[in-house]
Amino acid sequence: MPKLIESTNRKEFIAECAWRVILAKGIEKASARTIAKEAGLSLGSLRYYFSTQEELLMYAEALAIERMAGKIENVFMGNLEPKEKILEVLLQLLPNEGGEEPEQAVRLFFKFHNTHRSEREDDYQDGIYAALKNVMSNLVLLNLLKKEANLQLETDRLSMLIDGLAMESLLNRQLWGRDRKRKMLIYHLNSLCKEEFGELE
Amino acid sequence: MPKLIESTNRKEFIAECAWRVILAKGIEKASARTIAKEAGLSLGSLRYYFSTQEELLMYAEALAIERMAGKIENVFMGNLEPKEKILEVLLQLLPNEGGEEPEQAVRLFFKFHNTHRSEREDDYQDGIYAALKNVMSNLVLLNLLKKEANLQLETDRLSMLIDGLAMESLLNRQLWGRDRKRKMLIYHLNSLCKEEFGELE
Repeated sequence: MPKLIESTNRKEFIAECAWRVILAKGIEKASARTIAKEAGLSLGSLRYYFSTQEELLMYAEALAIERMAGKIENVFMGNLEPKEKILEVLLQLLPNEGGEEPEQAVRLFFKFHNTHRSEREDDYQDGIYAALKNVMSNLVLLNLLKKEANLQLETDRLSMLIDGLAMESLLNRQLWGRDRKRKMLIYHLNSLCKEEFGELE
Repeated sequence: MPKLIESTNRKEFIAECAWRVILAKGIEKASARTIAKEAGLSLGSLRYYFSTQEELLMYAEALAIERMAGKIENVFMGNLEPKEKILEVLLQLLPNEGGEEPEQAVRLFFKFHNTHRSEREDDYQDGIYAALKNVMSNLVLLNLLKKEANLQLETDRLSMLIDGLAMESLLNRQLWGRDRKRKMLIYHLNSLCKEEFGELE
């Protein structure tokens, strides 16, 4: 067992190095060689953990989604009141202004990268769409969704808003701090719910 | 004059070749060499029109925005009734399913690329945000915006929805044809306006 744990830790470490390369230079420039250098490993040692670059990138993407899912679960299991939980879950999907939690940015980079991968299937959804479906189900369960709201369209709209807001947060980190992102999410949720999610001013 | 016109045509031709490379491989892989090859030119001939790769990429981005602005203007000058004009302007901002109008996709690639360009200023807005501000002004002018709507937040929200929908359209071209994109835009506009923009079914 210790060997397996060590190997997992090592793979996660390499994937985190890949994240840094990706965020600094883009996925197209994240070659096995560049990632090995960032990790302080020889290309041969890297190959011991990931036999192809594709395998490494898939692992790096899956790890970002897994870490985000873990954070979302923590929020759900926590003690906030339901509407605050929903807001906090959505905030967890967005890059933060300090950049110290890279998963959200990495996830957006991979999603965007898939727009020009010709080999992929034309039915792309990452794990985050499932989380948003879950948020919408919660709004229904709590009887918060307006009667005239269309659940499918609202789920897609929320997904697009999150992606657009994530991109904006990366472009203009200083301008889109936590408070401003929170305000945008409150404004959007207010527009589709019967109750207010919070104060806008 | 003929010489100047020829030079402009040639620059536009090269920029269109750059678009194709960008859409197929990503901006990070759009080197001067690759673009020259796509254009059937030597690297030396390319340098005659653009002395640096940065200059070429800036021109390619500006040309995409300019072409989109031209199309938007055509819609505004046309004979559609006001609400149809607004819908049509928004549709012009989105990649189409056939991929035969690349400007919208190219524009999104450049916007995303700017998230990892460290040298740029932290106050990024491309020409499309100005077009969306104009759309929102038109909603105010036509007395369509709901009284409780916040103009600044609605402009940002529309911009994010457009970016998210543009990305979704690129990811799943077959699933997001013109009708489905139109339906999403109608749904969104209905949510912030006093009058319906169209039928959803």
